[in-house]
Amino acid sequence: MASSFGTLFRVTTFGESHGGGVGVVVDGCPPRLALDPATIQADLDRRRPGQSRLVTQRDEDDQAEILSGVFGGYTTGTPLAILVRNKDHNSGAYDHLRDVYRPSHADFTYDAKYGFRDWAGGGRSSARETIGRVAAAAVARRLLAEVAGIEVLAWVSSVATIGTDVDLNTVTLEQVEADPTRCPDPVAAQAITTAIETARRDGDSLGGVVTVVARQVPAGLGEPVFDKLDAELAGALMSLPAAKGVEIGSGFAGTRLSGREHNDPFEIGSDGNVSTTQNNSGGIQGGISNGQDIVARVAFKPTGTIASEQQTVTRDGENTTLSARGRHDPCVLPRAVPMVEAMVLLCLADHWLRQTAINVLPPLTDRP
Amino acid sequence: MASSFGTLFRVTTFGESHGGGVGVVVDGCPPRLALDPATIQADLDRRRPGQSRLVTQRDEDDQAEILSGVFGGYTTGTPLAILVRNKDHNSGAYDHLRDVYRPSHADFTYDAKYGFRDWAGGGRSSARETIGRVAAAAVARRLLAEVAGIEVLAWVSSVATIGTDVDLNTVTLEQVEADPTRCPDPVAAQAITTAIETARRDGDSLGGVVTVVARQVPAGLGEPVFDKLDAELAGALMSLPAAKGVEIGSGFAGTRLSGREHNDPFEIGSDGNVSTTQNNSGGIQGGISNGQDIVARVAFKPTGTIASEQQTVTRDGENTTLSARGRHDPCVLPRAVPMVEAMVLLCLADHWLRQTAINVLPPLTDRP
Amino acid sequence: MASSFGTLFRVTTFGESHGGGVGVVVDGCPPRLALDPATIQADLDRRRPGQSRLVTQRDEDDQAEILSGVFGGYTTGTPLAILVRNKDHNSGAYDHLRDVYRPSHADFTYDAKYGFRDWAGGGRSSARETIGRVAAAAVARRLLAEVAGIEVLAWVSSVATIGTDVDLNTVTLEQVEADPTRCPDPVAAQAITTAIETARRDGDSLGGVVTVVARQVPAGLGEPVFDKLDAELAGALMSLPAAKGVEIGSGFAGTRLSGREHNDPFEIGSDGNVSTTQNNSGGIQGGISNGQDIVARVAFKPTGTIASEQQTVTRDGENTTLSARGRHDPCVLPRAVPMVEAMVLLCLADHWLRQTAINVLPPLTDRP
Amino acid sequence: MASSFGTLFRVTTFGESHGGGVGVVVDGCPPRLALDPATIQADLDRRRPGQSRLVTQRDEDDQAEILSGVFGGYTTGTPLAILVRNKDHNSGAYDHLRDVYRPSHADFTYDAKYGFRDWAGGGRSSARETIGRVAAAAVARRLLAEVAGIEVLAWVSSVATIGTDVDLNTVTLEQVEADPTRCPDPVAAQAITTAIETARRDGDSLGGVVTVVARQVPAGLGEPVFDKLDAELAGALMSLPAAKGVEIGSGFAGTRLSGREHNDPFEIGSDGNVSTTQNNSGGIQGGISNGQDIVARVAFKPTGTIASEQQTVTRDGENTTLSARGRHDPCVLPRAVPMVEAMVLLCLADHWLRQTAINVLPPLTDRP
Repeated sequence: MASSFGTLFRVTTFGESHGGGVGVVVDGCPPRLALDPATIQADLDRRRPGQSRLVTQRDEDDQAEILSGVFGGYTTGTPLAILVRNKDHNSGAYDHLRDVYRPSHADFTYDAKYGFRDWAGGGRSSARETIGRVAAAAVARRLLAEVAGIEVLAWVSSVATIGTDVDLNTVTLEQVEADPTRCPDPVAAQAITTAIETARRDGDSLGGVVTVVARQVPAGLGEPVFDKLDAELAGALMSLPAAKGVEIGSGFAGTRLSGREHNDPFEIGSDGNVSTTQNNSGGIQGGISNGQDIVARVAFKPTGTIASEQQTVTRDGENTTLSARGRHDPCVLPRAVPMVEAMVLLCLADHWLRQTAINVLPPLTDRP
Repeated sequence: MASSFGTLFRVTTFGESHGGGVGVVVDGCPPRLALDPATIQADLDRRRPGQSRLVTQRDEDDQAEILSGVFGGYTTGTPLAILVRNKDHNSGAYDHLRDVYRPSHADFTYDAKYGFRDWAGGGRSSARETIGRVAAAAVARRLLAEVAGIEVLAWVSSVATIGTDVDLNTVTLEQVEADPTRCPDPVAAQAITTAIETARRDGDSLGGVVTVVARQVPAGLGEPVFDKLDAELAGALMSLPAAKGVEIGSGFAGTRLSGREHNDPFEIGSDGNVSTTQNNSGGIQGGISNGQDIVARVAFKPTGTIASEQQTVTRDGENTTLSARGRHDPCVLPRAVPMVEAMVLLCLADHWLRQTAINVLPPLTDRP
Repeated sequence: MASSFGTLFRVTTFGESHGGGVGVVVDGCPPRLALDPATIQADLDRRRPGQSRLVTQRDEDDQAEILSGVFGGYTTGTPLAILVRNKDHNSGAYDHLRDVYRPSHADFTYDAKYGFRDWAGGGRSSARETIGRVAAAAVARRLLAEVAGIEVLAWVSSVATIGTDVDLNTVTLEQVEADPTRCPDPVAAQAITTAIETARRDGDSLGGVVTVVARQVPAGLGEPVFDKLDAELAGALMSLPAAKGVEIGSGFAGTRLSGREHNDPFEIGSDGNVSTTQNNSGGIQGGISNGQDIVARVAFKPTGTIASEQQTVTRDGENTTLSARGRHDPCVLPRAVPMVEAMVLLCLADHWLRQTAINVLPPLTDRP
Repeated sequence: MASSFGTLFRVTTFGESHGGGVGVVVDGCPPRLALDPATIQADLDRRRPGQSRLVTQRDEDDQAEILSGVFGGYTTGTPLAILVRNKDHNSGAYDHLRDVYRPSHADFTYDAKYGFRDWAGGGRSSARETIGRVAAAAVARRLLAEVAGIEVLAWVSSVATIGTDVDLNTVTLEQVEADPTRCPDPVAAQAITTAIETARRDGDSLGGVVTVVARQVPAGLGEPVFDKLDAELAGALMSLPAAKGVEIGSGFAGTRLSGREHNDPFEIGSDGNVSTTQNNSGGIQGGISNGQDIVARVAFKPTGTIASEQQTVTRDGENTTLSARGRHDPCVLPRAVPMVEAMVLLCLADHWLRQTAINVLPPLTDRP
């Protein structure tokens, strides 16, 4: 359904920018997982507005309440419900958007789909919806760490035309979190900071790319056809607000290579396991993880809501112009980082459980 | 599940390269759709091997039999089952792949997931699996044409480093089908032909990009969160064999623009409808169609199976080399075109039905 | 998933007896439905404890808060989240159940499934979980009334060996609500009241049967195979706490009739529509509604938790005895009535939307 | 969807009485299950027409072909597709049903739902649809036997007013199969045979009850809310053609007992495991198996299609009469037995896999 994700580790988010709150129900989390509310809060804090001057200044502390599903410090196996109240809802700030459609935003399409829309703060199309995803993914992160030692880490790898130099094999969470841009290349981070501040001053906005890596993923996760691991990752990542592109491994650049160049040769690693000497596959072959790092890149367009005057129309069909007010990120990239991690974590937790359910019979001694 | 796609227009594919056949069950196709088996065959013929010297020479006529779900020339509303028998299964040609993993293929990951694999012709990982998708999508194409006049058209827009010049507003099916490359730019088509033939001779392979456009899609299709129309398209397209990247509208290039440049201004068109003066959104805003053409691009890596010698390992953990034999496309792009159309058609048919189920109450006269 | 129900009108409940609260997310409710919170509260009040001396005296006012999905008095089409806080959680009253399994309760099986359990008030197995179902069903009731004039009404038709005489064609909500037993036969209601009070005094409990009728259901709802309307109703009703049997129409008694007696003859009614002269089918034939009243009966076993001493075991595997304390219904029947209605409403709302999505092509003029 | 069942062990059936064939796709069967086609055929042979003079004399050998999903004698983990061709389709025998609705059959409701219907042999509403269920369930039976030693056995426990005396703890498959009635009480079997033959001669039909038991089911299978094991069994069993009622354990009779009588006392069995001294729960408490035998009963109405003249209407809205011809079972009970087993097997296989996916973390040493 529209607001649910996953087959076994299944999350359902709810909530709008200015209603009673936003949250998530996680159905299918295994019982007996030690779960400290601080774990969830830590990821929410990376996503929350107002954490630096680069992002929206809406004043929300985004404190999560676990309504159900935990008893004595452990998950019970029944639904986890997590609620974050909305506090700073200055709906009046959005009155000027009631009758006019912001270009490249969801205003017009919500009206087209639903016949009317909750125009206060963007309603359901607000990025506040991702609070539920990030909260659920914090649980998935705990699960994946405990059962398989999996680590998922994302960072800003470009903003507008500013590229970065990051070693995806060695980059750490500390490096990513060291700068409000969440760009672990200090030189680029400085340029990105300047560019974002300039864009804000100019009533403009910027886009960019987030790269994400999942480490220690065992070989064998994924499915062979529609639910290929790369397909599910692509759908999951493209479901983030403002996403316009997804690459796995070599992506579009890989189409320029020949098969001889692109193929990842297998070798027996020093640990005796099957490994590859390069990773154009981005850790996924035939829709199934191969044990190498999973690598994906997500393109985010520049924020649609800008203060500059733009040509648009009213919901009654009149041409007009709009200079949008309200509190918006001039660049979503820094806050997109935990969202990207969230979608990868949700995918992997789901597929890890799915593979467990498949892998129930003993090995064959007489493989055909 | 692994082999099912869609919520309401739901397809389930089955079959391997060398078993009794491949096919699909379509559950949820509305009743009373006039369905001529020739409609299905036409799309299968665009996908089938041996249609030109550019593609694999496996000899399959891929004749579809409709086992159920049609009575008196109309769909009954109950499951359509469509079967295509495998004919040219020269399994012996694959004996040399029984114990060795082709680099960048599904051989190793299937073993990792399932504990053994059907090594004859790649089993379920064979592109023959897409026969079921294309057959089901031919039904979706009929449905979408009848209920909404929607047209979905794809073409090859690059192969390796060879780009093309195609006007996506005017390109036609006839132009695409005019050349075996399915590239509607005749100059580029010639270069692509030469490049593919050279790659085959060299025991190498090539990748490329397919562009797809969906025309006459009404505004309002899609969902706001996980099942955004662009998210579902991205997942669907990335589930195709060899896909490594998906872009909607401006994609990765759009990340280099500022919001002022990237935003698509609204205007009231000459027909009185809301339109945009450019289409960086690729027809989708906030996960929901906006009535403009839907535009997506899919990156396909070079075919993994090549005749050149490659470094690899055996399933028993020994380093070795492999020069793969068997009948393979040196470049999947020409045959990927109907597969890309298929996934877009399946997505749109599903979302069209979903929107019908949502849009049941009368318009509001007192919009809040 | 475990805690979700429905394909298009999809509800997900959460919460335990003694946590932060219980509630529900409804995903897929059509937009533009006028929704007054009082509508939801009215159904919750019929379900809530303490409403009469026949039921548990736990003190909960069960006030529902709509967290999301409503704007300006109308549903928005995005998820409705509804939360009811737990207030009277005197967990200490349950300490004596921490290490011992109540016979015929969920205590042992939860431990067997999850490895431990939330023993405070029964945790997730508490009938408080049905608050979410009843709240969601109040929305379904509004939708069905508005789009099709459908009415769903249930009542207590037997308790223990006390039968009733009720005309299912004419019985009204007012008659059902006229007595705390929710038995619309006044003579039987008196006997039932006495029996329940006696059982409570004796530390015992009683079971019974609820009958439910759905009126004005159009012909054509349901599906032909696994999702038959009667199959979905049976599953939905059997999912209620303490349910042990479900009948549609003639049920088990119908097995004693011959086909000539059992078959419902068709006739053209005075309104020109197809009707039947009797209704052994209970309004469903071949899994699809036939336009007659849908009739079902649900068997509820006597409440498991009783004050009398019973033989049981501890979670550490020792034989012991238990006299359960805490606040429990000596007979669930009166409060089961709104729960039964809820499950029928959820089923019908879902199938009404599903049929809308199927019925999209024009009638055939040349039926084969 | 309409024609799919199960979350992890997921089956999708297709086919009509008189089309190209009927069959099933099983997605989610674990790999490495040794699967002999004869296993599937054995269960199909118990379901097939013409096996005795008590059942329909349609001449079908119902030979199953496994199209995919098996390699070298083992399941591969990818979809199993199984096809049974229709042979004896004497469609002309049904011409008289083209314009008239059989009372208490699916003819009218299919027209109401779909706008027209496949009238040849009942189309999708034919009991031939259950071939796919029985074939898939034969795979589930193999899986459950291998992983958990589970055995599922059903039998005819009443026909019309003829009851039986069967010990459900000791009855065996051999006893059930010893008589064409599938009633393991020889005295009752004789009476049932006479009654069925009389009904056939009289142009009439009979109903009855099938009892099913599942042995060696471990404690812990099922889910706590909507997907309770008893709820899923009830839905599964009610989805069988002609089913009108389902009971688990004590069922409707249990509503007449008091809690003291009905509760199943726990004790530590001689093997040190938790057991109960009686089984009114039918092996399920709180929706989850408790390790005792699962016991259910299914009511089947008398066959709707009878040769006697009945009052009915035409599809053009005229009153008329009908004496149905064609080959029909005068009593579905003997052939319903393998169908009942099939639905229980499919449920249990699905829940067994689901529990595997949940039970992934180590036991708690500090249970709260």
